[in-house]
Amino acid sequence: MKPRIAIDMDDVLADTVGKFIDIYRRDFDTTVLPTFFRENSFHEILEKDVYQRLADSVHQPGFFTDIAVMEGAQEVTRALSEKYDLYVTSAAMEFRNSLSEKYDWLDEHFPHIHWKNRVFCGDKSIIRADVMIDDMPYNLVSFQGKGLLFDAPHNRDNTLFERVNSWEQVGRILL
Amino acid sequence: MKPRIAIDMDDVLADTVGKFIDIYRRDFDTTVLPTFFRENSFHEILEKDVYQRLADSVHQPGFFTDIAVMEGAQEVTRALSEKYDLYVTSAAMEFRNSLSEKYDWLDEHFPHIHWKNRVFCGDKSIIRADVMIDDMPYNLVSFQGKGLLFDAPHNRDNTLFERVNSWEQVGRILL
Repeated sequence: MKPRIAIDMDDVLADTVGKFIDIYRRDFDTTVLPTFFRENSFHEILEKDVYQRLADSVHQPGFFTDIAVMEGAQEVTRALSEKYDLYVTSAAMEFRNSLSEKYDWLDEHFPHIHWKNRVFCGDKSIIRADVMIDDMPYNLVSFQGKGLLFDAPHNRDNTLFERVNSWEQVGRILL
Repeated sequence: MKPRIAIDMDDVLADTVGKFIDIYRRDFDTTVLPTFFRENSFHEILEKDVYQRLADSVHQPGFFTDIAVMEGAQEVTRALSEKYDLYVTSAAMEFRNSLSEKYDWLDEHFPHIHWKNRVFCGDKSIIRADVMIDDMPYNLVSFQGKGLLFDAPHNRDNTLFERVNSWEQVGRILL
């Protein structure tokens, strides 16, 4: 049996921060450079009510439909699947409308990962795998295997886990 | 931390065989007693093409919406949740339309199990828990904890796992 990798969707396979940047610029302000939000978490920058309204946009139908694929994710997961069993593990249960949108998004962008290897859950401590790649430290805390923290503006202060900055780096570590 | 139980939906929490009986009687034949299909698997009884057409009805929108709750499931899961962390683990990924239907069904019938404790997956070998209650022997084969086979017409020939015939019996074993 191949070792298993559990791979998160938002901000790991999918550029969800990029989607929030687009919405922020569309609905609120275009005076701040988009690149600034790659370095700084919305949470730390925005007025509380603006942050909340931006965060609430995940509930809009279609939010998860047109998120861009993270650079290198398709190529590296294709290469990894030779050596590992890959599972997409997304905490999708928080957002009912995300379920079918994420399902179709995976069909479109990651057809090389079978539907049998998709997991939509809430609390990820239910996941059994050898490696987990996630941008949320609390998902790695409860994980029993090796955790890789996928770099994101909202996890820069975490030093508990091995950080990966790109899919290219994931490939170098795991291939 | 409480021990964890992974609980299947179809034919464990939900009377999916009952739904198939209703559809069979509606679309094909009313000459056979419904109780007969509680003792004998459709697979063994029906003409191949009839079986296939019946099985394909899972793809109809709404199939998972109005399935009856299995007798005793609500009461016993409520009691179990005092002593265990319960996770609903359904192989829902096979049927795209089932995702939101199963989500709403759980909201309606099992509000005492939080959305964080729902898992929609394909291959259940990704699940980490202490006990798994499932009607499909192949899900229990790949499970590392204690497996309980929930009795169903389609698993009567299996002798590999401890069989439970009702939620009342699950309660007696685990409480």
